[in-house]
Amino acid sequence: MPGKTEPTDILRRKIRIRNPLLRNLLSEFLGTLFLLFVGTSIVAQFILSGEKLNTWIQINVGWGFALVFCVYATAKTSGGHLNPAISLVMVTFGRLSFTHFLLYSVVQILGALCGSGLMYILYYDAIVSHKLAVADHIKLFCSYPPEYLSWTGAFVDQAVGTGFLALFVCVVIDKRNKIPDVVHPLFFGFILMMIGMAVGLNLGYPINPARDFGPRILAYIIVGKEAFGAMNGFYWIAPAVAPMFGAVFAAWFYHIGFGAHLPDLEEERLELPTKEESALPLKQL
Amino acid sequence: MPGKTEPTDILRRKIRIRNPLLRNLLSEFLGTLFLLFVGTSIVAQFILSGEKLNTWIQINVGWGFALVFCVYATAKTSGGHLNPAISLVMVTFGRLSFTHFLLYSVVQILGALCGSGLMYILYYDAIVSHKLAVADHIKLFCSYPPEYLSWTGAFVDQAVGTGFLALFVCVVIDKRNKIPDVVHPLFFGFILMMIGMAVGLNLGYPINPARDFGPRILAYIIVGKEAFGAMNGFYWIAPAVAPMFGAVFAAWFYHIGFGAHLPDLEEERLELPTKEESALPLKQL
Amino acid sequence: MPGKTEPTDILRRKIRIRNPLLRNLLSEFLGTLFLLFVGTSIVAQFILSGEKLNTWIQINVGWGFALVFCVYATAKTSGGHLNPAISLVMVTFGRLSFTHFLLYSVVQILGALCGSGLMYILYYDAIVSHKLAVADHIKLFCSYPPEYLSWTGAFVDQAVGTGFLALFVCVVIDKRNKIPDVVHPLFFGFILMMIGMAVGLNLGYPINPARDFGPRILAYIIVGKEAFGAMNGFYWIAPAVAPMFGAVFAAWFYHIGFGAHLPDLEEERLELPTKEESALPLKQL
Amino acid sequence: MPGKTEPTDILRRKIRIRNPLLRNLLSEFLGTLFLLFVGTSIVAQFILSGEKLNTWIQINVGWGFALVFCVYATAKTSGGHLNPAISLVMVTFGRLSFTHFLLYSVVQILGALCGSGLMYILYYDAIVSHKLAVADHIKLFCSYPPEYLSWTGAFVDQAVGTGFLALFVCVVIDKRNKIPDVVHPLFFGFILMMIGMAVGLNLGYPINPARDFGPRILAYIIVGKEAFGAMNGFYWIAPAVAPMFGAVFAAWFYHIGFGAHLPDLEEERLELPTKEESALPLKQL
Repeated sequence: MPGKTEPTDILRRKIRIRNPLLRNLLSEFLGTLFLLFVGTSIVAQFILSGEKLNTWIQINVGWGFALVFCVYATAKTSGGHLNPAISLVMVTFGRLSFTHFLLYSVVQILGALCGSGLMYILYYDAIVSHKLAVADHIKLFCSYPPEYLSWTGAFVDQAVGTGFLALFVCVVIDKRNKIPDVVHPLFFGFILMMIGMAVGLNLGYPINPARDFGPRILAYIIVGKEAFGAMNGFYWIAPAVAPMFGAVFAAWFYHIGFGAHLPDLEEERLELPTKEESALPLKQL
Repeated sequence: MPGKTEPTDILRRKIRIRNPLLRNLLSEFLGTLFLLFVGTSIVAQFILSGEKLNTWIQINVGWGFALVFCVYATAKTSGGHLNPAISLVMVTFGRLSFTHFLLYSVVQILGALCGSGLMYILYYDAIVSHKLAVADHIKLFCSYPPEYLSWTGAFVDQAVGTGFLALFVCVVIDKRNKIPDVVHPLFFGFILMMIGMAVGLNLGYPINPARDFGPRILAYIIVGKEAFGAMNGFYWIAPAVAPMFGAVFAAWFYHIGFGAHLPDLEEERLELPTKEESALPLKQL
Repeated sequence: MPGKTEPTDILRRKIRIRNPLLRNLLSEFLGTLFLLFVGTSIVAQFILSGEKLNTWIQINVGWGFALVFCVYATAKTSGGHLNPAISLVMVTFGRLSFTHFLLYSVVQILGALCGSGLMYILYYDAIVSHKLAVADHIKLFCSYPPEYLSWTGAFVDQAVGTGFLALFVCVVIDKRNKIPDVVHPLFFGFILMMIGMAVGLNLGYPINPARDFGPRILAYIIVGKEAFGAMNGFYWIAPAVAPMFGAVFAAWFYHIGFGAHLPDLEEERLELPTKEESALPLKQL
Repeated sequence: MPGKTEPTDILRRKIRIRNPLLRNLLSEFLGTLFLLFVGTSIVAQFILSGEKLNTWIQINVGWGFALVFCVYATAKTSGGHLNPAISLVMVTFGRLSFTHFLLYSVVQILGALCGSGLMYILYYDAIVSHKLAVADHIKLFCSYPPEYLSWTGAFVDQAVGTGFLALFVCVVIDKRNKIPDVVHPLFFGFILMMIGMAVGLNLGYPINPARDFGPRILAYIIVGKEAFGAMNGFYWIAPAVAPMFGAVFAAWFYHIGFGAHLPDLEEERLELPTKEESALPLKQL
């Protein structure tokens, strides 16, 4: 086995955390931290350039790639959830205990808070010089609703957006769909890009309670109580809670509507059927 | 075999539909539903933001990824057609009976109708607050022709657009082109992106009778009879019928012009020839 | 072997062209035809929408994907050149005879002409209603130089652009770089996207004598002699000739500067070295 | 073994450089040259078209693909660093000697200088006709700070941007993350695209001392001493030095925070665990 005496391997032997819970929590914390550090920097570049240097396409593609590489960094350790709503789905699938879901959620929120704080340091000069309006200042960190939107509308928006995420993530990870593990994180990023193009109008698709709530705490500290003030102080609950319902509903909807009826792996011949052949059984009825 | 006692596997044992026709129809219904739910949401974000939050590139890329993941969700079950024109091509290839093509088409149209209805719920607040012009209101659901376009022009446009889809889908699924099954849905998405950049000017590339006709019924209910009114009530026939002709013509054109003359798989050596080597035979003439 | 009695296989047995030269010429003709049909439609959507529905990014991405799928359609038969400059490179590599290069070039030019003609039919209503300026009318078909550009500048531009294409195509197809055959056409498309972002300012990167000259003949017929009129009638020679020089120079530059010094396939261990290991030999000097 | 008598193989036998240091230096020189030739041409198209033909998305995607293909061209020979900061990371990983790092850096700077010079030739007509402001003229070659930015802010910006690059490159090349070698260069390009969307606001993400300093020398010759003049002559040091610190810090941060705690390759079962299974151990605690 080559490389055993490389400096990084020496480090590994010395500091490796062998307790799975601890290393998983560290992985989720740092993964969410970098997701938000990159992600809120993308938002900052969008806002601070007057939506000129970044336009909405960079919000979509940039966040997509941020998810891709943060999931690659954490998938082999903690599963790369980086989102309490996805962790909750895993609880309902019997793959994560409820206690661990709570711990995951806490470190995800803390990671998101720290990540957006690092963005603030990176863009401090630009933020100070731009004299942003309060709403725009808050939007550097977390979502802020438009005038026309009702609380119910916000709840539906976040439930639908996170529902798309959970549903299509289930498409990708269902073994019977035969998508190789190595491309899963890449496809999660493509899914997030798609969602940003479809469910970004109302709130900018936080679709992740940690991504929205963590940085909102920091916005409260830096910008003031208006961070929690929209809709008479009730708005912030929608992006913090609706994703949980949307994700679990959609994940199980996938299995009820699609996954449960997929052909078994054993049913198939050795050679993969082509797209057309898989439609063949219809004719033989 | 791991995972047999997971909640999703227990569900599968209980509700799995074993009748291939039924499960295929469910698959096409839900696949088209989600394709339209995501897709018309992308269009809504484009229109409701004044073509600012989404620009045309998001229409292209977003619809492309929507197709990618809806086909991944349905390919192993029903073949992932999600489009009556593609199903009709499969009839001519002897891979789907005509009766099943009719059933496929019905559920695809219903799925498209329901999907656009869910978009309407998602963006209800925004739609109400925007007081859209009638034509823009209809465009949330289905295509609406510009002033300059003749009915023949619309027919040609939809035949050409769907023709490109069918032709390049045939390139991808032809085994002799050796493109692995697992990337087929991804490439279908790339093809749709390309078509949206080339054949989107006139009508916005519906190129799918279910995608255009299903939501048009809903537009009729919500917006009024103007949904079927363009070109003295004859317009809607073009995107409902032309794709059928275009797709079948182009699919067979592919096989006549390209596919029939491809080297046999057996002809080739064990090692794949490089791009240059495949040009070599020329010299040996 | 499944599928032998499918309609497409029956067709294949009946019409298959077994003469390699004939089938290669048909492949190059149709491949270039569809490349231009899709490609010039993308340009038309850019011009006819006032650079609003398509912006430059769609020119880049759309042409890229058009190349991807037209090469997939033709790679196994004729090698998927679709460009006389690439065919000439293959002549210098000893993989195509000069006579066949001439025949390839003729059918590529004819294919390009026909493809742009089909675009004209597709967008006839829109073109007629838009009353385009002469220069814009010509640009639907082929390149037209800006005021500031000298003939030498045009020549350099086309030599550099096609040079990039040939150089990076050589990177991709050099077996020692170990890029699997199946992704070659996809990567060619990415290369073309990149070139359009780097060498599109002056002339819009035709970088393909067939792509520029074929449709220019049609522009002459439809728009008038101004199609060949720029720079006192000498401009059109630059995009028709410079790509030949640029491509051959760059392809050999690749082999002199990069390819000739790559480690042999046999030199390497069975396990592929990681990026870092391939830098290791430096230290052992 | 086919192809041994091809012209490119004859060339190879004649001119192949067998001294690993020499061929690695040539590889880094030419790789950085083409990276900058393409890359600064993208910037030129952005500036010279008034940010209309290219918008920021082309800066992101174009530079990303330029990195992709320049790394594919050089990865098997020199490791494809093309950036002194990445080379320095390799020194700390014990994969490159410090002396060779210095030599790498010199040829990378020279390559960057020459590459931007070729861009100048390509766009000479356009540059002359546009009568650029001094700052824009300099930006064709290298970064130039905005009014609001402090030197510390510039240093942080470049350290963070290059830090992201090094951290995510380490994610990709860490064997325990099981990303196949063949896609590494593609993923490096995606990472660069992401960084350009997140850390491009202040300085346009040079994040590479060679990329910034080499062309700055040329800007000094062509435009004048203002190329080194910003921030009282101290600005240029930030993009030349900060990337070194940022890259080394982030690379080791990756190994301390993520890499050291990854499951061993041997720990895993023969079948790759799915995303969910890798989260399973949590439950068994």
